[in-house]
Amino acid sequence: MSRLRFTITMSLDGFVAGPDQSVENPLGVGGEQLHEWVFPLAAWREPHGREGGEVNASTAVVEGRLANVGATIMGRNMFGGGSGPWGEEPWNGWWGDEPPFHHPVFVLTHHPREPLELAGTTFHFVTDGIEAALEQAREAAAGKDVTLAGGADVGRQYLAAGLVDELDLSVVPLLLGSGARLLEGLGGLRLEQVRAVEAPGVTHLTYRL
Amino acid sequence: MSRLRFTITMSLDGFVAGPDQSVENPLGVGGEQLHEWVFPLAAWREPHGREGGEVNASTAVVEGRLANVGATIMGRNMFGGGSGPWGEEPWNGWWGDEPPFHHPVFVLTHHPREPLELAGTTFHFVTDGIEAALEQAREAAAGKDVTLAGGADVGRQYLAAGLVDELDLSVVPLLLGSGARLLEGLGGLRLEQVRAVEAPGVTHLTYRL
Repeated sequence: MSRLRFTITMSLDGFVAGPDQSVENPLGVGGEQLHEWVFPLAAWREPHGREGGEVNASTAVVEGRLANVGATIMGRNMFGGGSGPWGEEPWNGWWGDEPPFHHPVFVLTHHPREPLELAGTTFHFVTDGIEAALEQAREAAAGKDVTLAGGADVGRQYLAAGLVDELDLSVVPLLLGSGARLLEGLGGLRLEQVRAVEAPGVTHLTYRL
Repeated sequence: MSRLRFTITMSLDGFVAGPDQSVENPLGVGGEQLHEWVFPLAAWREPHGREGGEVNASTAVVEGRLANVGATIMGRNMFGGGSGPWGEEPWNGWWGDEPPFHHPVFVLTHHPREPLELAGTTFHFVTDGIEAALEQAREAAAGKDVTLAGGADVGRQYLAAGLVDELDLSVVPLLLGSGARLLEGLGGLRLEQVRAVEAPGVTHLTYRL
């Protein structure tokens, strides 16, 4: 059974990006601090084409999140480049010529666009909603799991629709005070706690829905 | 050094009580679900005068929170009985004739009241603010730590004033959607993660401030 696994990093006060997100500041003010735990890891650096790095208690968690994944879904905001029609010289993502996915990525957008292929990763732009994106991602994953990579808005939509099978939440000891709140308007949802892993500067919480 | 340790249970979406708190429903709608992890524990039942109960991974956490504590601070709302002047037949707390504290408890209130002694626990009603309450609690604790028991409003005040030394947060896999949010208006605060303990139906996160 192909599961939809939603993987995201959240501040202790519930934000997955800081305030005032912009093209220049895609994670919002202070939002980059959310990801300080992951950048030093060898398990993160290797798929991003960088050498070296640390091994610690987060390593197995990051490797587990990358394992058995056949497709990724993300929101337009996470793909980046601002909102509105794609234009003549469209934004091609944050990841340069060789994105780290190496499997099909489905980008939810209101604006149609031809698929974009970059060194083994094809970005498909889906304009007919979260269920269609999941259906296409599942088919592309061919029995493997699908990762929902965020951001907050798309994540909330999938959670509210009851389509998420597993929530992998990395909680960092930081209070952002404002920004994009992940778990909003989802009252009444009860999750099953699967595991908690303590690691340097972060705790990884996994829930089944 | 006597530390101020703030101990509280929070839903995964950040609430320490549900919406519509009232005298009849002190934890708000659905709020009692926050504490389902603690009630079955022998470590909780014993100080509350009840026999039996479970031992699990939460046991050491609960015992650790009760150890080396010489005084407790709480808000008026947590002491209970509604707001406003105390009246002729004042509310004496939720805990019956033998409250589980067995040390001095300092209740923050706008309304003066004589101390209330119940079987080894004396409740002192402090009307001159959080710093005065902490000073009195520290003196009463005589070198031991002081527990800040909540609720959200008083907790936020102590956090904002930089007076909390340790935050013990029990996070339950439940989304309340609304209610009393704990970590609000505290942007910019960076905590030091001390430990994370996975237990049945709850994860205990400890931070140093």
